[in-house]
Amino acid sequence: MKMALRLAAFGIGQVEPNPAVGCVLVRDGKVIGKGYHKKFGEAHAEINALTDCRVRGEDPAGATMYVTLEPCCHHGKTGPCTDAILEARIAKVFVAMSDPAEHANGRGIRQLRGAGLDVEVGLCEHYARLLNAAYIKYVRTHRPYVIVKWAQSLDGKLAWKPDSGRRWISGPLSRRDAHRLRRASQAILTGVNTILDDDPLLTPRPPKGKSPLRVILDSQLRILLRRKVMNTRRFGSLLFTTETGVVGQDKKIDRILSKGVDVTVVPEVQGHCGLKTVLTELARREVQQVLVEGGPALIAAFLEEGLADAVRIYIAPVLLGDQGHKPLSDAMAALTRPTSLTDPEIKTFGHDVCISGEIDYSKSEA
Amino acid sequence: MKMALRLAAFGIGQVEPNPAVGCVLVRDGKVIGKGYHKKFGEAHAEINALTDCRVRGEDPAGATMYVTLEPCCHHGKTGPCTDAILEARIAKVFVAMSDPAEHANGRGIRQLRGAGLDVEVGLCEHYARLLNAAYIKYVRTHRPYVIVKWAQSLDGKLAWKPDSGRRWISGPLSRRDAHRLRRASQAILTGVNTILDDDPLLTPRPPKGKSPLRVILDSQLRILLRRKVMNTRRFGSLLFTTETGVVGQDKKIDRILSKGVDVTVVPEVQGHCGLKTVLTELARREVQQVLVEGGPALIAAFLEEGLADAVRIYIAPVLLGDQGHKPLSDAMAALTRPTSLTDPEIKTFGHDVCISGEIDYSKSEA
Repeated sequence: MKMALRLAAFGIGQVEPNPAVGCVLVRDGKVIGKGYHKKFGEAHAEINALTDCRVRGEDPAGATMYVTLEPCCHHGKTGPCTDAILEARIAKVFVAMSDPAEHANGRGIRQLRGAGLDVEVGLCEHYARLLNAAYIKYVRTHRPYVIVKWAQSLDGKLAWKPDSGRRWISGPLSRRDAHRLRRASQAILTGVNTILDDDPLLTPRPPKGKSPLRVILDSQLRILLRRKVMNTRRFGSLLFTTETGVVGQDKKIDRILSKGVDVTVVPEVQGHCGLKTVLTELARREVQQVLVEGGPALIAAFLEEGLADAVRIYIAPVLLGDQGHKPLSDAMAALTRPTSLTDPEIKTFGHDVCISGEIDYSKSEA
Repeated sequence: MKMALRLAAFGIGQVEPNPAVGCVLVRDGKVIGKGYHKKFGEAHAEINALTDCRVRGEDPAGATMYVTLEPCCHHGKTGPCTDAILEARIAKVFVAMSDPAEHANGRGIRQLRGAGLDVEVGLCEHYARLLNAAYIKYVRTHRPYVIVKWAQSLDGKLAWKPDSGRRWISGPLSRRDAHRLRRASQAILTGVNTILDDDPLLTPRPPKGKSPLRVILDSQLRILLRRKVMNTRRFGSLLFTTETGVVGQDKKIDRILSKGVDVTVVPEVQGHCGLKTVLTELARREVQQVLVEGGPALIAAFLEEGLADAVRIYIAPVLLGDQGHKPLSDAMAALTRPTSLTDPEIKTFGHDVCISGEIDYSKSEA
């Protein structure tokens, strides 16, 4: 099953809004077929594993299947996997977890069992859940999974002072990891201040596979038309603003739209774009995972409203002192309760430390 | 030599103001004697290794010696090790580093070589230097090695709000490590605010071996006589204050002295106890390593004046929000240049991350 999980991970960033799935066929302790769901619209992991098995000249009949998610039993872009499994006369199926999607939710497992197949559910379930955390949240709540990411100095600054002549707090290995995270997300969200201050392109580098939607929150429509995100049409951009922002701005909006940038008006909440509506709109566009890369206020807002599912924080071993900018602690003082990470994962990238983990709001202390 | 270094480390916290030294005797690829300097005033590592060798029934003659620091050739509390080495007819000596102390400084090595012994210097020198970083700084500069230690939340707070009912930011494993660090230091220094706010005992726990001197900076003599540090005479305490602090306070000073707490007046620098004088005075008391455990202002002062040699920072995976106290970034804004760590070491203690490293001020960017 671990091999199946590793295979499944290759699909992250390509298969969405489908879940990432891996599948391994074993007979007499020998792997006779491997497959994973590679790209949205293409064959599922089970089908790829069965095909791989036959290409190797093996017959899957009587083999044991390890699959990281309940096989589908419905007709979507591809035929039902349950039929293919039954046709192949697989002897036993280990399923890591059932598929929480409405059209699945145990149906595939029941169909296989109904046909007399031995199906065991729950092997490595914890890892399977981690792998598809975004998918699981998305199909259950119809909201995207939100990862808030930032890089900070030891003294809690998120940036160098604009006149310091320095750009990055974190090192090149951390930044490479952050780009991997961008690639695995379907949208990257930031505030208009970040666009105005840093003029980022907000694309994963090196560019590879699908490019995530670039999302800008701009309640007062302060965006400048010459910013990079406004002039790179081949990567999609979506700008959220409010009623206040659009008043008397017809001409600016026309110019924004003519650049291929979508504009969506959402309710104003405390002077800002209402985050819940923003997330609902992103889910409507099949965004399963959104990466928030903003300044202290935006980070704090997602945490305070309980809308961040996970954080990824890169800490560089430097004290910026008076050369630091955007202190975290001031904005975080808006958090009315302490917030802990569940099972934080610690990695190092060069000299940087990376702390990531899911936020368990129920555990946050009053 | 690595074995010798590991042995040497056992002496840390016990041998000061001597350096920690380990020694291994090898013949035909077999270890025939091991020793380390265990306690100030007792036998040196070389003598202990030679004794161990003889206790095992082996003759050290013709053996190779691995010793982490140049053997002494002077009469101190014990006889010169060089004589013992020559008498034992050791064939070859590997020395990790020469001893920077005035009375040594290559003399021991020259004496051994002068007697015809093959002496090689520099094996594992880097590790030997790390091991005795405090000793090396102390004998070279006549100032103690300063480690600044703090625990912080992800949002850069050093404490919970006083009314939060919570005390510790870091977890029990981090705190145990911090107590090991206390034990390895000869003094623990803090500001009077920490004493007034938290009433700490400032002793290593569990108590074991020597207890470090407790040092309090109190420029205005605001200490309260009922605080724990003032009423635990068996652990030494030393209070630094200024001329302003002692004016008209004869009675309070008498009461402090009667509790066995030393009082030393140092020049006032920007309203605070002059840190350089404080460190010189601690060196005079043979403090080789001082651990600074203070609030944001004290931490920033040691860094800004370039007096901190190393930092050890425990980061807990929690965002304290408005329940946080003592933000780091405000005080750090007093740092007029960014400060980096040289080769930071990352450890985890439970869910906490610990970042430690030496500060290289020469590399700090303007």
